[in-house]
Amino acid sequence: MPAVTDPSDAVSNLLADLASGKVEIVDLTQPLSESSPVMRVPEPFVNAIGLKMTELSHFDERGPRWRWNHLELSEHVGTHLDAPMHWISGQGGDDVASVPLPRLVGPAVVIDRTAQVEENPDYLLTIEDVREFEAAHGALPEGGWLLYRTGWDSRVHDVGAFLNNASGSARTPGIAPECAKWLAQETGIVGIGVQTVGTDAGASPTFDPPTPVHYYMHGANKYGVTQLTNLDKVPPTGALIVVAPLRLVGGTGSPARVMAFVPTK
Amino acid sequence: MPAVTDPSDAVSNLLADLASGKVEIVDLTQPLSESSPVMRVPEPFVNAIGLKMTELSHFDERGPRWRWNHLELSEHVGTHLDAPMHWISGQGGDDVASVPLPRLVGPAVVIDRTAQVEENPDYLLTIEDVREFEAAHGALPEGGWLLYRTGWDSRVHDVGAFLNNASGSARTPGIAPECAKWLAQETGIVGIGVQTVGTDAGASPTFDPPTPVHYYMHGANKYGVTQLTNLDKVPPTGALIVVAPLRLVGGTGSPARVMAFVPTK
Repeated sequence: MPAVTDPSDAVSNLLADLASGKVEIVDLTQPLSESSPVMRVPEPFVNAIGLKMTELSHFDERGPRWRWNHLELSEHVGTHLDAPMHWISGQGGDDVASVPLPRLVGPAVVIDRTAQVEENPDYLLTIEDVREFEAAHGALPEGGWLLYRTGWDSRVHDVGAFLNNASGSARTPGIAPECAKWLAQETGIVGIGVQTVGTDAGASPTFDPPTPVHYYMHGANKYGVTQLTNLDKVPPTGALIVVAPLRLVGGTGSPARVMAFVPTK
Repeated sequence: MPAVTDPSDAVSNLLADLASGKVEIVDLTQPLSESSPVMRVPEPFVNAIGLKMTELSHFDERGPRWRWNHLELSEHVGTHLDAPMHWISGQGGDDVASVPLPRLVGPAVVIDRTAQVEENPDYLLTIEDVREFEAAHGALPEGGWLLYRTGWDSRVHDVGAFLNNASGSARTPGIAPECAKWLAQETGIVGIGVQTVGTDAGASPTFDPPTPVHYYMHGANKYGVTQLTNLDKVPPTGALIVVAPLRLVGGTGSPARVMAFVPTK
């Protein structure tokens, strides 16, 4: 393949702006550790573990020049992608390895409901909320990602506060069923990103249908990303998101690295 | 933060060119499965397992509406990043979670020695090879990645041929010690990507120093990425690479998603 040297192409221009600081990369990923949250499901259903790291060698008789670890983890620990086949409505949809990269890289918009969630941890995003955003910032982007900012990432260092389920039922924000159905079936977005442990509200098992974001988005062969941070550093429009799960064959989800390319001026 | 709506910014231009096909995204990642290769170390040193996937539920009594899996794997299975702390020369260097994203996103160059490796599976890249590339394509990029194309990815479906160690010692291509030292200490690249199971040649344990790519690159707080594919779809210069490992706290490495943004015209 010939060298591409056109200094005016979009890739060269982005590289120049990254080098000069005119574009910055924001890490939307929570650090992954043994304290990273994982969704809890009620008994008798099988729960997943988070992450367990075991040392294989540490510059010792097990490996004199190298240090490395063995990992055990859920596909759905920490900041992760939910693939369509994760949900009963998405059977036959993409596994993680089959999600086309062009659907994991695209325009991102951020809808901020931090203030509403501070007032009400059960806050549900509505179609009216999204319509209000579109009136101010334009239509949701075709092939893009809706990032739902709730400020919930500030609780991640306290798993009890993050899961917020001391009462026995989780109280965390989410998306109203009719809004989830509309986003999945009537808009051009391919994914929804949230700051909570999962893409659905804590109360969503009682909704009709239960867990509507999972039900409608995966049923439309669309995606969800959870446990995002630094959404306060991403503008309402104008950013490019890269969602990078492992290329896990048969995976129903995967921990992912998620970053945003953001113009700084 | 205000909306960014300047239609001429580099991020908007890239999004437009991705949508129009003027820029394509090439997946440099090998599919990750239970047959993904992992480096073998000689006894009595401790070896890592590759990947093991165990089903937790499959739309059944263990989880009626969801399907998910538990994973066991090495930090260093399949296409993965080696962090500096993986090697004795890089103690005190970055763990995976500490690698700055601007060092994982940058210009990529591809040096192709497929023909030489077909002749000689022990082929070692030399300083002269890199100088020849620079004479034709310009200096190695500051903050960039050198992708060393050997065609070895064509063997990945036969682990025996991929590890090529039937003789008891592995015969796979790599980088000459003096070239590894020069790349780490005298050039502006921050990472080296290869198509083999590891960044060093199969014969490298016998080199002085042993495994010189690991020794010199990690000693310079630089990085390695292994088991890349599709390098035939990336031009010698002009591409942007995104290396996306998990944000694994204390990780000496991580399976990674690696992609290239390539201008198509």
